[in-house]
Amino acid sequence: MSSIPQLLNQRAALTPERDALFFEGSRWSFDELRQMSLLYAEKLTGHGISRGQLVALQMRNSAEMVFVIHGLMMIGAKTLLLNVRLTDHEREWQIRDAKADFLVSDKEAESEVKIITLASLRETAPQRCLFLKELDLAETATIMYTSGTTGKPKAVKQTYGNHLFSAFGSVLNLGLGDNDKWLCTMPLFHISGLSILFRSVIYGSPVVLHRQFDPRLANQAIQTEGVTIMSVVSAMLSRMLDDLGEAEYPESFRGMLLGGGPAPMPLLKRSAEKGIRVFQTYGMTETSSQIATLAPEDAIRKIGSSGKPLFPCAISIWKEDREASANEPGEIRVKGPNVTPGYLHGRGSESFRDGWFYTGDLGYLDEEGYLYMLDRRSDLIISGGENVYPAEIESVLSAYPAVREAGVTGIIDDSWGAVPAAALVLKDGAVFNEEEILHFCKERLARYKIPKHFAIVHELPRNASNKLVRKELTKYFW
Amino acid sequence: MSSIPQLLNQRAALTPERDALFFEGSRWSFDELRQMSLLYAEKLTGHGISRGQLVALQMRNSAEMVFVIHGLMMIGAKTLLLNVRLTDHEREWQIRDAKADFLVSDKEAESEVKIITLASLRETAPQRCLFLKELDLAETATIMYTSGTTGKPKAVKQTYGNHLFSAFGSVLNLGLGDNDKWLCTMPLFHISGLSILFRSVIYGSPVVLHRQFDPRLANQAIQTEGVTIMSVVSAMLSRMLDDLGEAEYPESFRGMLLGGGPAPMPLLKRSAEKGIRVFQTYGMTETSSQIATLAPEDAIRKIGSSGKPLFPCAISIWKEDREASANEPGEIRVKGPNVTPGYLHGRGSESFRDGWFYTGDLGYLDEEGYLYMLDRRSDLIISGGENVYPAEIESVLSAYPAVREAGVTGIIDDSWGAVPAAALVLKDGAVFNEEEILHFCKERLARYKIPKHFAIVHELPRNASNKLVRKELTKYFW
Repeated sequence: MSSIPQLLNQRAALTPERDALFFEGSRWSFDELRQMSLLYAEKLTGHGISRGQLVALQMRNSAEMVFVIHGLMMIGAKTLLLNVRLTDHEREWQIRDAKADFLVSDKEAESEVKIITLASLRETAPQRCLFLKELDLAETATIMYTSGTTGKPKAVKQTYGNHLFSAFGSVLNLGLGDNDKWLCTMPLFHISGLSILFRSVIYGSPVVLHRQFDPRLANQAIQTEGVTIMSVVSAMLSRMLDDLGEAEYPESFRGMLLGGGPAPMPLLKRSAEKGIRVFQTYGMTETSSQIATLAPEDAIRKIGSSGKPLFPCAISIWKEDREASANEPGEIRVKGPNVTPGYLHGRGSESFRDGWFYTGDLGYLDEEGYLYMLDRRSDLIISGGENVYPAEIESVLSAYPAVREAGVTGIIDDSWGAVPAAALVLKDGAVFNEEEILHFCKERLARYKIPKHFAIVHELPRNASNKLVRKELTKYFW
Repeated sequence: MSSIPQLLNQRAALTPERDALFFEGSRWSFDELRQMSLLYAEKLTGHGISRGQLVALQMRNSAEMVFVIHGLMMIGAKTLLLNVRLTDHEREWQIRDAKADFLVSDKEAESEVKIITLASLRETAPQRCLFLKELDLAETATIMYTSGTTGKPKAVKQTYGNHLFSAFGSVLNLGLGDNDKWLCTMPLFHISGLSILFRSVIYGSPVVLHRQFDPRLANQAIQTEGVTIMSVVSAMLSRMLDDLGEAEYPESFRGMLLGGGPAPMPLLKRSAEKGIRVFQTYGMTETSSQIATLAPEDAIRKIGSSGKPLFPCAISIWKEDREASANEPGEIRVKGPNVTPGYLHGRGSESFRDGWFYTGDLGYLDEEGYLYMLDRRSDLIISGGENVYPAEIESVLSAYPAVREAGVTGIIDDSWGAVPAAALVLKDGAVFNEEEILHFCKERLARYKIPKHFAIVHELPRNASNKLVRKELTKYFW
């Protein structure tokens, strides 16, 4: 039970002619996808990549990114998926921290490790290599960085078993029809996007891949290209409804898998009025995508809930060293074969106790066992679908010469859902210059992490044990 | 990844109100099924059954049998499923060989171990016990005996992981709809029946359970009770088509999962003419039911094939120490997380080599990788859906005083598909008395194993290495 056949080999052997991938007018069957992935595997081998190495990817969604991801699995190399919005500084930190051996990038870049641009990869002659025929379920397939509430960013290891069970859990909840076709407008470097690729190969159903999210193109894919299901966050769904106007989706559209934080009730109601089924889900990088999803039959009755754990996962609420009772809020902890075995370098081991992963998110289970999420990891800001961690921004701001200490929180924003805002305590005699500090941030932080608002304060709100109470920072930005 | 929640607990927590079981006019939801199973777990505890013990079941299909099977899982006891057609002698041999601690029976019986009749179980007061909340995927859940071509019967261990992956592999091939309802007329003591129970709990879809196969009742369940899929062997399907006459199945009926040996082409064509989809499958006790199934889309084009391996399993053909080429017949070997870790007491270990299980069955893969089964384990006789092993019958016949040696083979029979026939070499001067030898057999062999034809011969056909060539025995029965 410890190993399975190489996923794409198995799928191509089972259903070679079925549609696998649609991207910008082109279509690949599973057999063709396998051929392309083998070709890219041989090209990557031509650059010296081999079994067991770690390869960082800095790529926007494209068919080639899919070939590279599968190609690396064919070789038996691990993939570090980089957010393309990272600054060079952030990217190099992750590459160094994870000890990556190569960087594959769809644009020119400079790196401490050997860089392979997509342009050069296209020109590379394939070099014969030993393809990996079996995948060890316990082996790390992919790595993604996530920041915690405190400390350094942590690299989440996702094993082949994690991805496999994630796909199994999802199908038992959402079902599987002969004509299923999943629209992926999420970046493949996020688990929400990558998990669609894994599901496609495991289920034998196609992905319609978009380079990026565009509400008009997404609606078009649903209305005229046979898409039956799509993954979204609230902001995306809202923009799609705006674009849709009076039009409607075809009967064959099964619904929207909505993740990335609690969904606003008006949005859910607006969708219901349009006859659009919304499957609210709860998940994170550490759970290899969904770990709870509201079953279709409960979509209306339990509106606002993220549903029940996927099969065979468990969720419970932990409150001060005991399990919370029904409707009592506490920290959400999760368990299941889709949950990461841990972070790289043993970081964050305090979050893994007694077989449970303590998410840091707040929520409760109602008397029927439905999960309601109240708040992401105390301080997490979700801005336009990206996770933004105050601690990381505070750490940069505190390094700025004029700043003594910094506190960051999220404030509501019409376009992005939320944006980071920073309260700063200046050093004695220092003067605040917004332009300079923004410049300082731009060199060190991806654009979506840069505070959109600043407030200069005398002291930061702290609790009895002198811990920063970030929620109270919002008062400075009203 | 090594453990999962207790299956029925998880299912009842996820979808408590959904239909779980229909039996003779009664209906249980998953929550009710769980309540009944907990009650039976407490009753079984009242008889002294506890975690880790092995409990033999001698039961015909009934709702109570389902409660007992789930009840034993709740306690964490293992289940030995006995064929109810075994003689007392055969049953006791299995109980002794497997070292079972208890026998639960739906009729009065005498046994070397403590016996609990269903009648007494109904009267037993429940006794509180510690329910097992987590199932270890590597732990044996169920045991079933199967005989080999030579030697003693072997007990197949099926782990929780075997059952889980079997259900996953099936759903990825056959899909899963909101209204799925599986008809089980197969005995639950066979893997073909038991696997329907596991799929039901894992998928959250109901089972319609029949006490035994009756073509009229089976057709009725499909025509008027919303059954969408059913497991059959050829003889059953043939009788259902006879009973169906000019009538047809509703649109909602997805198809027949047909196992138990190569299907006759006329039967497949007759089904196709009635618009009935037949999913031919290949599987055995050792693979926890299906390991290959013809995908719906190939049902016509590849008629006669058992399809491709289920996800994520592998099948290859082995011929004299090398892998056979396309279309070249050889021994079918299989690999996958649904394949038994082995037989009890390490028997038959020669069938497990290099991570593969060598089935002994003959077949080939065509150039597209579709499996065609040619013959079951050289000498296996399938009579009315039951596996009959010549070696076991020969062993009994050879013990009869007048017999020097015996050879058994299967011959075609209109009612049963095949029946066993025995060629006997008598001792010098001995006289053959059919009535006496039948009486001798009845005490030692289940009815379906007793030879229906006898031939007295001078010598048995043997090959150069003096091995009995059972196929050649058929000439004595023309």
